[in-house]
Amino acid sequence: MNANAETVAFDADTYMAGLGVAARAAAAALVRAETAQKNRALLGIAEALSAAAPELLAANEKDLAAGRENQLAPALLDRLELTPARIEAMAQGLRDIAALPDPIGAISDLAYRPSGIQVGRMRVPLGVIGIIYESRPNVTADAAGLCLKAGNATILRGGSEAFTSNCAIGRCITRGLTEAGLPASAVQLIASTDRAAVGALLRMREYVDVIVPRGGRGLIERVAEESRVPVIKHFDGNCHVYIDARADRRKAVEIAVNAKTRRYGVCNAMETLLIAESVAAALLPEIASRLFEHGVELRGCERTRELVPQALAADEQDWYTEYLAPVLAVRVVEGLDTAIAHVEKYGSHHTDAIVTEDIDRAQRFLREVDSSSVMVNASTAFADGYEYGLGAEIGISTDKLHARGPVGVIGLTTEKYVVFGAGHVRS
Amino acid sequence: MNANAETVAFDADTYMAGLGVAARAAAAALVRAETAQKNRALLGIAEALSAAAPELLAANEKDLAAGRENQLAPALLDRLELTPARIEAMAQGLRDIAALPDPIGAISDLAYRPSGIQVGRMRVPLGVIGIIYESRPNVTADAAGLCLKAGNATILRGGSEAFTSNCAIGRCITRGLTEAGLPASAVQLIASTDRAAVGALLRMREYVDVIVPRGGRGLIERVAEESRVPVIKHFDGNCHVYIDARADRRKAVEIAVNAKTRRYGVCNAMETLLIAESVAAALLPEIASRLFEHGVELRGCERTRELVPQALAADEQDWYTEYLAPVLAVRVVEGLDTAIAHVEKYGSHHTDAIVTEDIDRAQRFLREVDSSSVMVNASTAFADGYEYGLGAEIGISTDKLHARGPVGVIGLTTEKYVVFGAGHVRS
Repeated sequence: MNANAETVAFDADTYMAGLGVAARAAAAALVRAETAQKNRALLGIAEALSAAAPELLAANEKDLAAGRENQLAPALLDRLELTPARIEAMAQGLRDIAALPDPIGAISDLAYRPSGIQVGRMRVPLGVIGIIYESRPNVTADAAGLCLKAGNATILRGGSEAFTSNCAIGRCITRGLTEAGLPASAVQLIASTDRAAVGALLRMREYVDVIVPRGGRGLIERVAEESRVPVIKHFDGNCHVYIDARADRRKAVEIAVNAKTRRYGVCNAMETLLIAESVAAALLPEIASRLFEHGVELRGCERTRELVPQALAADEQDWYTEYLAPVLAVRVVEGLDTAIAHVEKYGSHHTDAIVTEDIDRAQRFLREVDSSSVMVNASTAFADGYEYGLGAEIGISTDKLHARGPVGVIGLTTEKYVVFGAGHVRS
Repeated sequence: MNANAETVAFDADTYMAGLGVAARAAAAALVRAETAQKNRALLGIAEALSAAAPELLAANEKDLAAGRENQLAPALLDRLELTPARIEAMAQGLRDIAALPDPIGAISDLAYRPSGIQVGRMRVPLGVIGIIYESRPNVTADAAGLCLKAGNATILRGGSEAFTSNCAIGRCITRGLTEAGLPASAVQLIASTDRAAVGALLRMREYVDVIVPRGGRGLIERVAEESRVPVIKHFDGNCHVYIDARADRRKAVEIAVNAKTRRYGVCNAMETLLIAESVAAALLPEIASRLFEHGVELRGCERTRELVPQALAADEQDWYTEYLAPVLAVRVVEGLDTAIAHVEKYGSHHTDAIVTEDIDRAQRFLREVDSSSVMVNASTAFADGYEYGLGAEIGISTDKLHARGPVGVIGLTTEKYVVFGAGHVRS
């Protein structure tokens, strides 16, 4: 950060309006851009990042030094750090995005109507997207790349701890865009850490079509509360696995263990295990012993603790909690209805799974559980843009409108109606 | 309205929270409801409305009398009025909705992924929808019917001038729901004209998934500004027809006349005509004379007025104006680029059309004009849910996220991911 940051005058509203105008103009150019040109830009940015690795590492070292001085937590310093491997991963991510199909301009469901006109829907960019994220510099390249592929102009605002790194990455993005003949303002980094700039971004309804916050719950809540621009957001992943009375023993054990232990700090990890009372005695001890081998702490209802004495007592708050840690809440339930009611009451509508061999119960769970992903006999760990075949993802939406579940390139687009006539008028 | 309205204590927050809880419970029942049961309810409501015609007319007469006493404008009194024909139209509207296909539960794009899981998307209700509308009692039945077909619970708040009529219609809705075995709280009318109830509705994020305001710009702006619940909204329809240098003469004249004169007070009426300078002299006088026959007033740029001396002078504000009246702004432009720039600057992103025989220009207009409907050689008057084959519509969205253009049953639904495994875990 500039050492004079506090003493130099800066008017956030004026500055942001300038970015807004430039972004709107770039969006008009991007909607015309051919697929090959967008891909050239993506590959050019990838090349620029690889070529600039020494500069990126030097810029990042400044951020890291400041972070250490400010006693950032080790986990935050780790997220902030760029390594040659991480730079190469950013570049590869952009090449992967270039390889995805271009959704823009595709027309679906074009059909003749009784009046003689043809009506269909064309996939088009959203326009201008604002991305607000924490101090992970790789998001700068990932988010810009996905938005660019979808034909959107982007305004990026990363965490202030990564400011120098982000500016260095931003210069690579500008190089790639310019070399491909696209406007540099197709991707703009907010060149100030002033908080007022974020406020201005969230109010610029005339220039910004959607805001995507990426980070912890605190960031997302602040953005959602303050924004006058629509927000695609991702709250908690309090995911459940329900083991039904008619579950297959092997499937139940493997799914429960995988959903909890594959990774702890991710939004698709199971946080509560529900199990039907008729199979609890047969299955819970085995599942518990497998989880204990992984060092997972169990917090159970009374009946769980009768079957698994090592489990601690769960309280009401546990059912609401996204631990993001080797901790699991466990509850014995009567059956499907109680399980669904529990998921609806305590869950976060992210990802929930049932393990059962009973087709009626599977169907009911699929239809009645109101979550962005609902699974039968599969681990919640599969809730992921790559696993779903979207290519890269910008996040997992727990909203119901527009994008729900993993959000990839398609989630950054919209559709408009197209009508073809031959001079048709309406009578 | 109750004569004691001012003296009876009423706590809007408490009352609305009760509606919210009941609506959430009804939504859980509706997501399980079979298609036939929802259709029975729709047909039952239609029958109840027909059977209750005398009561509806009597209730409506009370609203009309109060409206006359309060010196409502004749146009408002006309909207407020129920007639036997209008009651029958409401009932028929519900029968039409019953005849539409049920979108709920349909699974699309189900495919195997390399991991072995199957991933698809299931169409599901949004949940609870709040509808806020002005004093047109027929909206009560139309909106409730569409939401019910899409499996949503609804909370309705109509204009206070139609309160007695709406309550009478609400009783018919309750009868139809109950007879079909659905919860009466699947459709709830706010039983108070207290403004605080609207405020509470717009804050109930835990109970309400989306708000649909229906009415004039003032209402929609107030709702959009105040709501903490996502809003599907419809602003102005400032629609354009651009007559290109390569337009067919007959198509150009017929489309321009139809788009302006078919109906004046509708959002898909043309408000500005743009015409390429190379064909203005050949076409404008004929179009103007046809429009004058209909009593349309023209407000033109200087070059328009050279060709059509009867035209008044347009000022900058005219290009922004949705007249909803027999008035048309006319501008001679250089060509396609100027036309697109005009539409983007002054338009409202509702519906815009090009008349041309040139395929490249048609393609560019389709791709570059960022409106909910973009047309080639067809009248803007076609922008309508029925014409597009959606069946009934709840409105035309000028938003970009979620629903864009005419919003029918599908626009009142969302999708969730469904995943099928056979014990699959993620490595």
